[in-house]
Amino acid sequence: MTALSSTERTKLRRSKDKGREDRSHLYAVLRAAFICHLGIIVDGTPMVVPTVYGFDDDHLYLHGSVASRSLTQPATTVCVTVTVVDGLVLARSLFEHSINYRSAMIYGVPQILVDPWDKLDALRIVTEHVTPGQWNYARRPSTKELAATTMLAIPLAEASVKTRSGPPDDADSPDAALGLWAGELPLRSVWQDPVPDPALPAGIETPSHIAQRARL
Amino acid sequence: MTALSSTERTKLRRSKDKGREDRSHLYAVLRAAFICHLGIIVDGTPMVVPTVYGFDDDHLYLHGSVASRSLTQPATTVCVTVTVVDGLVLARSLFEHSINYRSAMIYGVPQILVDPWDKLDALRIVTEHVTPGQWNYARRPSTKELAATTMLAIPLAEASVKTRSGPPDDADSPDAALGLWAGELPLRSVWQDPVPDPALPAGIETPSHIAQRARL
Repeated sequence: MTALSSTERTKLRRSKDKGREDRSHLYAVLRAAFICHLGIIVDGTPMVVPTVYGFDDDHLYLHGSVASRSLTQPATTVCVTVTVVDGLVLARSLFEHSINYRSAMIYGVPQILVDPWDKLDALRIVTEHVTPGQWNYARRPSTKELAATTMLAIPLAEASVKTRSGPPDDADSPDAALGLWAGELPLRSVWQDPVPDPALPAGIETPSHIAQRARL
Repeated sequence: MTALSSTERTKLRRSKDKGREDRSHLYAVLRAAFICHLGIIVDGTPMVVPTVYGFDDDHLYLHGSVASRSLTQPATTVCVTVTVVDGLVLARSLFEHSINYRSAMIYGVPQILVDPWDKLDALRIVTEHVTPGQWNYARRPSTKELAATTMLAIPLAEASVKTRSGPPDDADSPDAALGLWAGELPLRSVWQDPVPDPALPAGIETPSHIAQRARL
């Protein structure tokens, strides 16, 4: 575990106080979400694709089929951004309004996994990140399905993390005299009760790893 | 209101059944979120930045200060992606696992607004989209603050919308015989109770447009 590299790209040009260079902050953001936005260049134009991910100490893993267009490109650097929105920051002035958030930006050249065991391992990591417990419950991919699956590994070597939390910044400004309410409006992602497939025969219980998640 | 253009970029190459070409579907996705991911190219590399937005019939408006680097680039096409995650689709096989989501991808050349009234109008649209009611409550920008604010307008002319909803797709497959549970695990963004700024003097009540939102 080493500090994240600070390259020209990930050197924070604005809001240096919002930068967190420790790897543990990167992992914390990656743990808090399961959808990322993958930025690639297609025919000279940026393209931003939402997709699920998983990660280990050294790599971010993406399920490649959603980015089929990107995979036909030569190996070039991509940008993956993970954002968790924690709420609105409502200041006295509109100018000081902000968002409380945790965000990670990762740059790297994706490696397309070829070895079936590497692919299976990456798929396990993504599955267990998105739905813990499901790898040991659902039917795993057949040889044919695995061959039809593209998995990408992106090194977690060049990344930056930005966060904001807490109340607005204008409590000490002349605007405090306006007598306006100011504070935060928190936002939270909440799992709902599982909805069984209507085609499910009677008597199949919701597995505990799914049922429990809705109570988190 | 015309149909969205279908260009080479927004022609859906995969999952044609998930494409919705009607403008009303685009507006519905834009109404359902307030954070987008802006994709730009910086020094030949894609960069994906999360930021708030607002919109009217013809334009998406972005608060430009978060993308200060992009604004120093010559006018080129950007990609803005808005994603709402509605839940996990848990199939019998891992291969059929999916996400229920609503997503819009917009391509366009951003126009940097120069006229102060245009900027103010764009700021009002973004403010009222993110926090309805706040434009008439908080202190509006001074001339100096407005000058320090960069607002972008991106035409809503070239866009695509993709959505998935409902149960998994393998109820009719041989995997149904496995006797495994399958269904959806819905996810919802929920506003929490407002948190007053600790520096707020006693006696300032939470305005109703903020208090009511937490009960939505």
